[in-house]
Amino acid sequence: MIHYEDILKAREHMREVIHETPLDYSSLFSDLSNNDVYLKLENLQKTGSFKVRGAYNKISSLSGEERKNGVIAASAGNHAQGVAYACRMLHIPCTIIMPQGAPLSKVEATRGYGATVELNGDSFDDALAYVLELQKQTGAAFIHAFDDDAVITGQGTMGLEILDQLPDVDAVVCPIGGGGLMAGTLKAIKTTHPHVKVYGVQASACTSMRQSIEKKVPTLIESIPTMADGIAVKKPGKKTYDIIEKYVDGLFEVDEKEMARTMMLLLERSKQLVEGSGAAALAALMYKKIPLENKKVAVILSGGNVDVSFISKIIEHGLMESGRYLTLKTLIQDKPGRLQDILEIVAKLQANVVNIHQQRVGVKVFPGQTQLQMSLETKDREHIKEVIKELQKSGYEITEFF
Amino acid sequence: MIHYEDILKAREHMREVIHETPLDYSSLFSDLSNNDVYLKLENLQKTGSFKVRGAYNKISSLSGEERKNGVIAASAGNHAQGVAYACRMLHIPCTIIMPQGAPLSKVEATRGYGATVELNGDSFDDALAYVLELQKQTGAAFIHAFDDDAVITGQGTMGLEILDQLPDVDAVVCPIGGGGLMAGTLKAIKTTHPHVKVYGVQASACTSMRQSIEKKVPTLIESIPTMADGIAVKKPGKKTYDIIEKYVDGLFEVDEKEMARTMMLLLERSKQLVEGSGAAALAALMYKKIPLENKKVAVILSGGNVDVSFISKIIEHGLMESGRYLTLKTLIQDKPGRLQDILEIVAKLQANVVNIHQQRVGVKVFPGQTQLQMSLETKDREHIKEVIKELQKSGYEITEFF
Repeated sequence: MIHYEDILKAREHMREVIHETPLDYSSLFSDLSNNDVYLKLENLQKTGSFKVRGAYNKISSLSGEERKNGVIAASAGNHAQGVAYACRMLHIPCTIIMPQGAPLSKVEATRGYGATVELNGDSFDDALAYVLELQKQTGAAFIHAFDDDAVITGQGTMGLEILDQLPDVDAVVCPIGGGGLMAGTLKAIKTTHPHVKVYGVQASACTSMRQSIEKKVPTLIESIPTMADGIAVKKPGKKTYDIIEKYVDGLFEVDEKEMARTMMLLLERSKQLVEGSGAAALAALMYKKIPLENKKVAVILSGGNVDVSFISKIIEHGLMESGRYLTLKTLIQDKPGRLQDILEIVAKLQANVVNIHQQRVGVKVFPGQTQLQMSLETKDREHIKEVIKELQKSGYEITEFF
Repeated sequence: MIHYEDILKAREHMREVIHETPLDYSSLFSDLSNNDVYLKLENLQKTGSFKVRGAYNKISSLSGEERKNGVIAASAGNHAQGVAYACRMLHIPCTIIMPQGAPLSKVEATRGYGATVELNGDSFDDALAYVLELQKQTGAAFIHAFDDDAVITGQGTMGLEILDQLPDVDAVVCPIGGGGLMAGTLKAIKTTHPHVKVYGVQASACTSMRQSIEKKVPTLIESIPTMADGIAVKKPGKKTYDIIEKYVDGLFEVDEKEMARTMMLLLERSKQLVEGSGAAALAALMYKKIPLENKKVAVILSGGNVDVSFISKIIEHGLMESGRYLTLKTLIQDKPGRLQDILEIVAKLQANVVNIHQQRVGVKVFPGQTQLQMSLETKDREHIKEVIKELQKSGYEITEFF
């Protein structure tokens, strides 16, 4: 059972250990969603996500006897870092099992907090099975990522902070995976402020909570890969399910494109780096999935742990979408100077060549011709139209562009 | 003349208009620099940089008569957005002249604040000349980017905030371009806390303040292009020079690589997006240019307005440097199945193919061979060594890698 008083206590005894993260008004997202939007910047939390709240509350509640054999957990992501950080603060030995192939950056961050990291199993489920085996042998305390009273209680401190920082909040939007953050936040808010609406957001790729609520029981679902790995949980917890089913005002979904665009906007305009699941709640608001207008809305950006190589992909995709990147194919004559001619046109239009490739052989490439593929940095969609028009005017047939 | 009391007043009357930005402790940069490091997150300021402080203070000090003909400024960057935002808050018409070829994102952001943006001239100097011409015709009030008492006074509010947020600060590190932020901050801090050290940091590509101080007069210098465009000012102001020359405890320089790596670390670990000049001060501390150890140091991250396409370049470069990206060339036999053979080895080693290119013609490529160039995502430098070793063991000669 989760008790409201325990969330209050958790908040007090964690004050020195975790950040009270900012709840920042965003004029950009307010304009875009037609609400007053406040971003709860949990990407700036210790360890880069909210997970440390639950992990610290759970681990600090262990008795001296329980702590003796150390702590063990399975995670490829934010829970690992939360547990490792909490153990360092509490001087408890910590072992984290991650599946083989876990991103090196997460392995290193977790080791950086002093945990012993072991790679075992091909999937998260394999790693978890191994942890439960290991736990029997060593007697270490196993820390579940969400379906645990003390963990849910710790996550609930998020709700208290929001109420303190924005006492007249109308609605809170929160991402859902296993449901720990959602359940804790619901309990914290609905106990004293039942009129505040609290909504949950999942990735379309993995809607285990919605399907569970439809079937009235926590259900294991099929899911497809998603950039929101932090909320890609195939079966919600029983404890989290019970609270969410009772209190939540609505569940919504966002797709990969919506999350990617939201990540890009947050980075470009708000200067904030968030991970896919961290962008989910805001994406749902921005793409008007949630029936909210002219309200004061707190949106939880739950974490910021994303591989930088992935950011660079998000950016490139975003550039392409917004007309700042153009790839085109055309045929030119296979003679000295002909490449130079077309590049002159492109240069005059202030488009910057990023990539160029020529190919002389092809079904549609007649002898004496060569196919040119060029990638250009452009200013916007108008600029792209201008480039294509000018090339066509000069006699180049653009066979393909994207 | 800059008066300390005016900085106090500026702070009061700007309270509702600008953010008091966070001064966040960073355990990462504390460890890396062997100090207690606090990051002044001015990248989260309204308009994405500190410039709005000076611009608002200046423009709000204009008389009714002066405001009548509107405001005019020349800038391709943060000053433009600061002036435009201040004018919108004060309901004053605003014209910003930018050089042709100014980044579209900055043009759009400035227009977004309601300013009229005109592109004129090939360089900043051309744009400035045009502004002064235009000003004579229209009688609009010209807002200098740094060499102005009210502007410097406005920037000085940064110093007051730091003293409030960290009363026992030992040292402050601040980027220098024209010197407005540095001069204001110095005045604010040295008036009441003369024992607090205040250091300035420039990009090696443009060290106008250091050279001016050596020559004992503001001096126009030669500079080379730098990613720190926000502090690439070829000649400091007279007013700013006088204050800095009198109070500053030392000037330091950072190169492009140091700024790029610092930007990457801030993004990856602190989840903060900063621009090149915004990373300069922290880079100087991290690369131990400044004689500070075991001190409480506030570092000003002055802005976060950077083109996203540039971030993606910073990330790719950073990945390459840290061994997470490998490009290699080798020769394989020009027969069906041979490409498959080498890819099997690479796949077993968990390296991910990003790019592949085969070329059959080349001076060192004998008939029957083909040259293969492959780009791979790798885990770290060790992984790169392993990939190369395994390929060599299987008989492939690696002719080049980077």
